[in-house]
Amino acid sequence: MTEQTLNNPQAAIKDKLFAKLEASNEDMIKIRRHLHMHPELSFKEEKTARYIQDFYKELGVEVKGNVGGNGVVARIKGAKPGKTVALRADFDALPIDDQKDVEYKSTVPGVMHACGHDGHTATLLTLGKALHELRDELPGEYVLIHQHAEEYAPGGAVSMVADGCLDGVDAIFGTHLWSLTPFGTIEYRTGPVMAAADRFEIKVQGRGGHGANPHQTKDAVVIGAQLVTNLQQLVARRVDPIESAVLSVGSFVAENAFNVIADSAYLAGTVRTFKPEIRDLMEREIARVVEGAAIAGDCEIELDYVRGYPAVVNHEAETEFMKRIIEEELPGVEARETAPHMGGEDFAYYLEKVPGTFFFTGAMPEDPYPHHHPRFDIDERALLIAAKALGAAATGYQE
Amino acid sequence: MTEQTLNNPQAAIKDKLFAKLEASNEDMIKIRRHLHMHPELSFKEEKTARYIQDFYKELGVEVKGNVGGNGVVARIKGAKPGKTVALRADFDALPIDDQKDVEYKSTVPGVMHACGHDGHTATLLTLGKALHELRDELPGEYVLIHQHAEEYAPGGAVSMVADGCLDGVDAIFGTHLWSLTPFGTIEYRTGPVMAAADRFEIKVQGRGGHGANPHQTKDAVVIGAQLVTNLQQLVARRVDPIESAVLSVGSFVAENAFNVIADSAYLAGTVRTFKPEIRDLMEREIARVVEGAAIAGDCEIELDYVRGYPAVVNHEAETEFMKRIIEEELPGVEARETAPHMGGEDFAYYLEKVPGTFFFTGAMPEDPYPHHHPRFDIDERALLIAAKALGAAATGYQE
Amino acid sequence: MTEQTLNNPQAAIKDKLFAKLEASNEDMIKIRRHLHMHPELSFKEEKTARYIQDFYKELGVEVKGNVGGNGVVARIKGAKPGKTVALRADFDALPIDDQKDVEYKSTVPGVMHACGHDGHTATLLTLGKALHELRDELPGEYVLIHQHAEEYAPGGAVSMVADGCLDGVDAIFGTHLWSLTPFGTIEYRTGPVMAAADRFEIKVQGRGGHGANPHQTKDAVVIGAQLVTNLQQLVARRVDPIESAVLSVGSFVAENAFNVIADSAYLAGTVRTFKPEIRDLMEREIARVVEGAAIAGDCEIELDYVRGYPAVVNHEAETEFMKRIIEEELPGVEARETAPHMGGEDFAYYLEKVPGTFFFTGAMPEDPYPHHHPRFDIDERALLIAAKALGAAATGYQE
Amino acid sequence: MTEQTLNNPQAAIKDKLFAKLEASNEDMIKIRRHLHMHPELSFKEEKTARYIQDFYKELGVEVKGNVGGNGVVARIKGAKPGKTVALRADFDALPIDDQKDVEYKSTVPGVMHACGHDGHTATLLTLGKALHELRDELPGEYVLIHQHAEEYAPGGAVSMVADGCLDGVDAIFGTHLWSLTPFGTIEYRTGPVMAAADRFEIKVQGRGGHGANPHQTKDAVVIGAQLVTNLQQLVARRVDPIESAVLSVGSFVAENAFNVIADSAYLAGTVRTFKPEIRDLMEREIARVVEGAAIAGDCEIELDYVRGYPAVVNHEAETEFMKRIIEEELPGVEARETAPHMGGEDFAYYLEKVPGTFFFTGAMPEDPYPHHHPRFDIDERALLIAAKALGAAATGYQE
Repeated sequence: MTEQTLNNPQAAIKDKLFAKLEASNEDMIKIRRHLHMHPELSFKEEKTARYIQDFYKELGVEVKGNVGGNGVVARIKGAKPGKTVALRADFDALPIDDQKDVEYKSTVPGVMHACGHDGHTATLLTLGKALHELRDELPGEYVLIHQHAEEYAPGGAVSMVADGCLDGVDAIFGTHLWSLTPFGTIEYRTGPVMAAADRFEIKVQGRGGHGANPHQTKDAVVIGAQLVTNLQQLVARRVDPIESAVLSVGSFVAENAFNVIADSAYLAGTVRTFKPEIRDLMEREIARVVEGAAIAGDCEIELDYVRGYPAVVNHEAETEFMKRIIEEELPGVEARETAPHMGGEDFAYYLEKVPGTFFFTGAMPEDPYPHHHPRFDIDERALLIAAKALGAAATGYQE
Repeated sequence: MTEQTLNNPQAAIKDKLFAKLEASNEDMIKIRRHLHMHPELSFKEEKTARYIQDFYKELGVEVKGNVGGNGVVARIKGAKPGKTVALRADFDALPIDDQKDVEYKSTVPGVMHACGHDGHTATLLTLGKALHELRDELPGEYVLIHQHAEEYAPGGAVSMVADGCLDGVDAIFGTHLWSLTPFGTIEYRTGPVMAAADRFEIKVQGRGGHGANPHQTKDAVVIGAQLVTNLQQLVARRVDPIESAVLSVGSFVAENAFNVIADSAYLAGTVRTFKPEIRDLMEREIARVVEGAAIAGDCEIELDYVRGYPAVVNHEAETEFMKRIIEEELPGVEARETAPHMGGEDFAYYLEKVPGTFFFTGAMPEDPYPHHHPRFDIDERALLIAAKALGAAATGYQE
Repeated sequence: MTEQTLNNPQAAIKDKLFAKLEASNEDMIKIRRHLHMHPELSFKEEKTARYIQDFYKELGVEVKGNVGGNGVVARIKGAKPGKTVALRADFDALPIDDQKDVEYKSTVPGVMHACGHDGHTATLLTLGKALHELRDELPGEYVLIHQHAEEYAPGGAVSMVADGCLDGVDAIFGTHLWSLTPFGTIEYRTGPVMAAADRFEIKVQGRGGHGANPHQTKDAVVIGAQLVTNLQQLVARRVDPIESAVLSVGSFVAENAFNVIADSAYLAGTVRTFKPEIRDLMEREIARVVEGAAIAGDCEIELDYVRGYPAVVNHEAETEFMKRIIEEELPGVEARETAPHMGGEDFAYYLEKVPGTFFFTGAMPEDPYPHHHPRFDIDERALLIAAKALGAAATGYQE
Repeated sequence: MTEQTLNNPQAAIKDKLFAKLEASNEDMIKIRRHLHMHPELSFKEEKTARYIQDFYKELGVEVKGNVGGNGVVARIKGAKPGKTVALRADFDALPIDDQKDVEYKSTVPGVMHACGHDGHTATLLTLGKALHELRDELPGEYVLIHQHAEEYAPGGAVSMVADGCLDGVDAIFGTHLWSLTPFGTIEYRTGPVMAAADRFEIKVQGRGGHGANPHQTKDAVVIGAQLVTNLQQLVARRVDPIESAVLSVGSFVAENAFNVIADSAYLAGTVRTFKPEIRDLMEREIARVVEGAAIAGDCEIELDYVRGYPAVVNHEAETEFMKRIIEEELPGVEARETAPHMGGEDFAYYLEKVPGTFFFTGAMPEDPYPHHHPRFDIDERALLIAAKALGAAATGYQE
């Protein structure tokens, strides 16, 4: 205990918290590996949810299951008055076959924790235990949100929020272990940090026929091709060049004999944006291009535009706070501003309700693979850093 | 027997031939219905081939099987010197499920004589029988080519020709029963009458990736779409407007999750032309467009251009002869010039070797369906007209 | 005089006619050269019109000027009853600077007989003189239509017809001297022989702006480029491949500083077709493509589609007659079927009213240039052939 | 003089400087108006250059003309040791006709200070005079760069730098009076703040011909249209969506008769980027698209890509310093972070050599027009703010 902490009760708590986390490190990794071996798909995470509840129940922590689905919320009340801070970890896995060659490899064929949610959960459980043990010294209240179904829209966040998980919460913090960010680095960013991720489907209903007689048909392949080309113009011509937007058509399916003219063509794609007005613009302009193509092609074109998670927009004060926490409380960890990610996250919904920030904890292993890759893994030492960062933020936010 | 025929041995023969054909009409329709009930796919027509051989053997006609595959060739030598005239009928069926509600419906699920080849075969067998019976009065020689596998490239014609079916032949005639041409009409045309039908396949090998990160990819859907659009320009810009050409892309397949950028795209299509130089032009220009797209898109694009049957190009003298035969010998039948058909036919190969003509015998039933339709049928009265037309041509060509 | 002609008064007349034409050949060439040196633009051919009238007046032929504008019509009545046959020659020149190096070069800078109308006129005047001299032996009546303004829509034919030049006419014949067809050949064709030639103009009204700020603009160049590409699809997808159609965008003008986004773009082009239904289709489909582009581009696009001359559609009987005339009456001249020309001709309007045919008289000189080229010229020997062909047709049509 | 400044010689100097600037305000505006009435085009600013030199010579300031062209550099050495700080003002005008209705309207038809460079020059002259008067108290040295030809590539900066204007300079500051930013605001930004602005020209050399005969041509309009469309894909597919890039084709010129197919088409456009690697990427990809189009179109396409000014990339330390200067030394002025501008500025070249920052001084008048507009004007009160900001930066940078 340093001289400084003697004069600073908050600093004293932080030191105790970090000591407890360090002591629990091995257990934390065990939890992560256990979860890694027993992954469950989004909206089907019953066993994981029970595991989490059991963990807290054994400790005597107040915990509630079935929050907005398979969600679990634990609440730890400090003995002293203070703010209510939420921390969030997601716990669903992906329909990917684990191809790593490790002891803790998934035991469920075709299902894998390929995005690090196992680590998030282990981190928050371990941090919860430490906070619980320190509850008599702690000001404020800690809401530990274990969220199901982050990977699959509409996601678990929106229903957990609807089910009250943010009631009384003053701020929220969350992190993502990131396999492509070096260990020892935490990335933060004020404002939009992950994109709104929407989906669209287009069905071109032409009129099929024999490949030799185009004049008797409405060629859905030709109309679909023009659509693809025209949709690509939107980002270049409609979006302010200092803003970001992506429109990608992932699927173009019109499968026929070579000597047939396609009756219909199916297109599906994604739109990524950071700002609501750009998102609205893209949706509106896609509809316009589709309408124009239907008229020019004299055919029916159905457009289904489905909004996914909104952009994750970090609040400035909490992000600045988080940056300071890293710089001041986590010696050896570098705080680095990140460029926005074009990927999506339903942490967005929490930040629409309460202030907070979402940051990336570097967890790059020796042989790194991107998230969602069948050989994805993380440097498990990052769990301790994530736990400390969240813990320091939660307790530091009381000052 | 008219006065004219008394003075004209050829006319006398024609009258006897027509009388025999009329007498055999019911048998001819029976044969057609038998074949209709027992269809066989291209290159698998063993039973039909045996049926044809047995028919001739029973009559004592010289017949040879396994000509260039399942092909059958019967030869009838007239007692008098004269020309050698070939007549051709194809006998394969299609992978289509018969959905007609008739007694003689196909007994083979998923296989159907949906193009009238059963009728062609019945016609030629019946005509063969009549010619055989008249052989002592006939000048010349008659080569009855029963061809397998017209429906599926490379087709049976090319191998039957290679196997000698045209040896010594002076001219060839063939007809197609046509369900969309009125009964009582025969359509002829000098020059190109059916198109060269080629196939192409294009594989765009881009580089896949996440839909949110286009800059890390080479978007095969976008490149494929540009290809479709640019290929459509060829007919409009490269082909002499008074010539005919069709390029249709029937298949565009890049099936992926909506939020992925396609790694590859597969396109397949057909090219139809009448003139060899336009065919060469199209093949060359497609290659050029593909090469340009690969360079612009910085990716690999494979092009496989497979030539199908060449155009059926009727010879002028034989077509004029045929027209005259119809007008003079087939009272009640209207000879009408047809526009060229964009469909293909391997009768083309015979006409590359010997003079001849291919004509369409109107066989439109009350409720007509196009060829290759599951409810396709013909007006069976057309068989007699086809038999007479071929018979009059074969015997008349001797003059 | 052959034995045949002794028994055939028509043949006798033909022989006399040809003898007169041969005797007038030098004069005919002089007339042609005089006109060649004094060309006048469409709708401004006053002097040429007077020259033609004076020619007939001097002979004592009944002639009428100012027919539907600068048109001139002479009428020669034969002494015997018969049909009324019209012959037509156009007499306007082009806004092209004569770059030939010949004695009879144009004396008017920037104006030139670069399409052979001087030759047409010389031919018809000379033929008129011969018919006038033979009038006492001739059956029927001969209407010599000297038409102004063939080169510039709406052309002179339509107003001459309205002004009665075809009143009482039973048939019409016309020819075009053709610099790319060999001397000694006459080309004929039944049905469509020259195309309907329409014009369209498109004005894309976008919203201009700085090249760096596309999102504040509606980029008329991008919208115009999509229009060009989409319009090119029409021939390939909408038109029956055995029919002919051309759509060419000749002009694309959006001239701006490089760093500006175009406020508007101007496109102009032509459509060529042979059949009214294809013409209607093209006009309709262009409108559709333009409407679709305006919707997709969220801008105004004006389309002005102006119909030019309809297709020249030769009548079958008169064309067959003409072919026979050439083959039988013009020894040494080859009759050859021509492919349709995509160019336009207002002879079309005459053939909409009365039967007739328009044919091409080969006039290829040693160093041939295409029509409308500044070095265009003809082989003047072709005038005699044209005069004989028209004369034989006019007198032969009486039989 | 505040207590603080008593203890702070730097602060004392700043106060004196500001007092002098305030006292000179009217003169400064007079200078601006004089220049406004006598604008000179880029590279032709002889009189303005002489005016600037005369101004300094009269004061006895060391000044050098003809620096890298019409550039003028004055140097003021403080009595005390210190850093060498450069300040830059540009002084060329634009080929725009002044349409304002003010006393100080341009006296030169078609030439106008429509971008505020008159104000920049007045500001720097006035600041120079004040610094000269305070030279005995000043540490360091002040290099006053009066730059010609900012508006017209290759610009004056590159040659002035080559001619030594930055020799010995430790840092540089510059500002742009901005008519669309509110008076009382200064906008700053670290990193890229103005774009690299490149120009490209493309000449499609097809083969012209008659609109009715596309097969004999290589249609430059169609090829050009495909180029426009394909070029628009680059920003959407090749550029990282969190980066900025613009490609605009401003000109598309193929002017022909409507019934002609274009022999050639001329395209010109601009590319805007902030990062050198994106700039390189765009140049490379444009070349690729052009090469692909030439191959697909079987024609020659010339591409001329001319790099304009690079991006203006502000240095972090100097920008943070500048922000602090505004916040601390310019009470009543709001410092605001700006989004990057897609416009270009050759201040870029200075920042490639020495640290510094370029900022925007709000000068929005009551009825604001954008820069380069014929009615452009500024709120002249902004000159004093610009002078103070530059002066405080230059003298404050010594600490």
